[in-house]
Amino acid sequence: MALVKMIEDGHASVEVQAVFDEIKTARKSDWVNNFWKVLASSPATMQRIWSNVKLVMAPGALDALTKEMVYVAVSVTNNCEYCIHSHTAAARAKGMSEEMYAELLAVVGLANETNRLANGYQIDVDEQFKPKFD
Amino acid sequence: MALVKMIEDGHASVEVQAVFDEIKTARKSDWVNNFWKVLASSPATMQRIWSNVKLVMAPGALDALTKEMVYVAVSVTNNCEYCIHSHTAAARAKGMSEEMYAELLAVVGLANETNRLANGYQIDVDEQFKPKFD
Amino acid sequence: MALVKMIEDGHASVEVQAVFDEIKTARKSDWVNNFWKVLASSPATMQRIWSNVKLVMAPGALDALTKEMVYVAVSVTNNCEYCIHSHTAAARAKGMSEEMYAELLAVVGLANETNRLANGYQIDVDEQFKPKFD
Amino acid sequence: MALVKMIEDGHASVEVQAVFDEIKTARKSDWVNNFWKVLASSPATMQRIWSNVKLVMAPGALDALTKEMVYVAVSVTNNCEYCIHSHTAAARAKGMSEEMYAELLAVVGLANETNRLANGYQIDVDEQFKPKFD
Amino acid sequence: MALVKMIEDGHASVEVQAVFDEIKTARKSDWVNNFWKVLASSPATMQRIWSNVKLVMAPGALDALTKEMVYVAVSVTNNCEYCIHSHTAAARAKGMSEEMYAELLAVVGLANETNRLANGYQIDVDEQFKPKFD
Amino acid sequence: MALVKMIEDGHASVEVQAVFDEIKTARKSDWVNNFWKVLASSPATMQRIWSNVKLVMAPGALDALTKEMVYVAVSVTNNCEYCIHSHTAAARAKGMSEEMYAELLAVVGLANETNRLANGYQIDVDEQFKPKFD
Repeated sequence: MALVKMIEDGHASVEVQAVFDEIKTARKSDWVNNFWKVLASSPATMQRIWSNVKLVMAPGALDALTKEMVYVAVSVTNNCEYCIHSHTAAARAKGMSEEMYAELLAVVGLANETNRLANGYQIDVDEQFKPKFD
Repeated sequence: MALVKMIEDGHASVEVQAVFDEIKTARKSDWVNNFWKVLASSPATMQRIWSNVKLVMAPGALDALTKEMVYVAVSVTNNCEYCIHSHTAAARAKGMSEEMYAELLAVVGLANETNRLANGYQIDVDEQFKPKFD
Repeated sequence: MALVKMIEDGHASVEVQAVFDEIKTARKSDWVNNFWKVLASSPATMQRIWSNVKLVMAPGALDALTKEMVYVAVSVTNNCEYCIHSHTAAARAKGMSEEMYAELLAVVGLANETNRLANGYQIDVDEQFKPKFD
Repeated sequence: MALVKMIEDGHASVEVQAVFDEIKTARKSDWVNNFWKVLASSPATMQRIWSNVKLVMAPGALDALTKEMVYVAVSVTNNCEYCIHSHTAAARAKGMSEEMYAELLAVVGLANETNRLANGYQIDVDEQFKPKFD
Repeated sequence: MALVKMIEDGHASVEVQAVFDEIKTARKSDWVNNFWKVLASSPATMQRIWSNVKLVMAPGALDALTKEMVYVAVSVTNNCEYCIHSHTAAARAKGMSEEMYAELLAVVGLANETNRLANGYQIDVDEQFKPKFD
Repeated sequence: MALVKMIEDGHASVEVQAVFDEIKTARKSDWVNNFWKVLASSPATMQRIWSNVKLVMAPGALDALTKEMVYVAVSVTNNCEYCIHSHTAAARAKGMSEEMYAELLAVVGLANETNRLANGYQIDVDEQFKPKFD
């Protein structure tokens, strides 16, 4: 159970309800997930994080699905149970197939392995990998 | 400096040189990076990891560039200096633009932030996020 | 459920009960939390860790509440569910208000984000940040 | 060396220079550190992160020094070399004495140890630690 | 609950059942644990990981019990609940006594602490620790 | 360079020099490594950590070499450059062969990979792995 009291959709202050409404509109959804109901306990945090999410997760040079899969990759590496669930669900909703999901987790697993081989052997970065700026 | 003596391309045993050659052919490259020259100190590890890399990183349901960007996301989260350099270089070589790179790091940063908000508040997973199987 | 059998307060060996009693006295509490009941399965570990906790967590140049909040920050970053609960409860008992808690988690989240931006871009440390000793 | 070309103070676009100027004014400083010169390669990221830093790090229920020390605690736990240097310097500039610094690192170290004891033994959260809301 | 549908032993495709059978034979066991029933959702991942486990975990220069204890040490550091349970059970089955287990977790805890002291103080590696190759 | 001024062997206060001397005697060594010269800036931390190291790293149910290898496994997983160097050197001094080292890193790598597969798929712990106490 969350360590603060959740604010329920429909029982919020005007400023918090405005974010709830914006979230539902943006997602074409009729419910608000626990992440936002918990963050609503601190309206300043809620508004700041929602503003960041809108800026960062909007499709740009990377499409929305790729961004969700990167979110899953980070959340799996950090072992954030909530985030693994929410962003896997979001990636599936945006079109991630079971084959894509299996490949995503395979890359995440392998990267975590080779990260430790590179660290463990203390491998020097090749000069060829360093970008040249003039 | 690496914690084992690197095996140089052209000065390797037959079994190790075979992997060096395969790496250069696969990458249409005339050099081998330090990661493999270090792993060559343990031919069993080198062959096993190369086999995994070929299986996992080949284009499939996810394209090669997306896989490299996921690799970067994991390496940044874990702070593996070698892997950040090598996979950022690989992603750029596969077409990652500076705009894509900036958006990738922005997502990685935000995911690391919200992972801690979800953990810190101990937020319960919404039932709606849990997949239903029958 | 813990991976070892917990030793209950009042059913412990003399050496373990002595630590239980000291913990209750130090905390002006009539119960012992699971962390110590589990560590009691290894009296050497229990005594060593309790000795460390007394030395490190006693008010000194930093007050007790600041130390608890730092403990929460680390536990959230590492995602230790037990420690998040126990040290958030301890910090609240020592006077952490809901506003302080929200600001604490906001700093923890932001630090986790900018840590990855600094790592991801491989930013060099400015000379001005390096301390000078003579 | 950073993986993007740094934008130097005085050689930036109008929008980037405005952030540089604001940073120097806020810090009563005549130089800009590498973190911002690197982030300036992506003005959207730079403006967003600066906006977050201003909101999160301003003194509120927690004072500015406590916030810097929490930042150090997270950066040490994650092993972000850049952030350890920059936020230790900032904490010292805000009044962190050597005694406070030693105690801060002692708490960070101990928390990282007991986090693993709690995880390793898979200790259940005590009911007494769970907040009650009605 | 797992994020994919588990494949049950006895209800699998020929290729997946072959791995299930091999696992049970190798372990002289009449059941298959959830890890493999979940990985079976992606036969390519299942076969690849099983192949790696056989190669890496077989007794060699290190005995099977030492390898299991190293697995536990990593899993505890990363806080992987599933892996802590499965590899602690495997280590016990291979002969890890309660005294060995307590000492293992004590080393894991202490290493996590001193890792942060070394990082936090940014201690330079002594020349004497760097291997010399000629 | 370390963030505090190192105390040199032979130029320390009586209490710090006593620990330096004890370290050299215990290790049959004529020099003190940077870790202790840095910790000496806080005698309380130095004495506390040295006391812990003696208690935890002494041979017991686990031999000294196994403990050093577990230390390496944790340090590699956390990417602590100093600790990787110092504990790899210590493990080699205690008899870790190159074959043992290669197998150690292979297990560390694989464990980091499967930790993320278990987390990523959110696999439930099998009842059979849970210990039964009565």
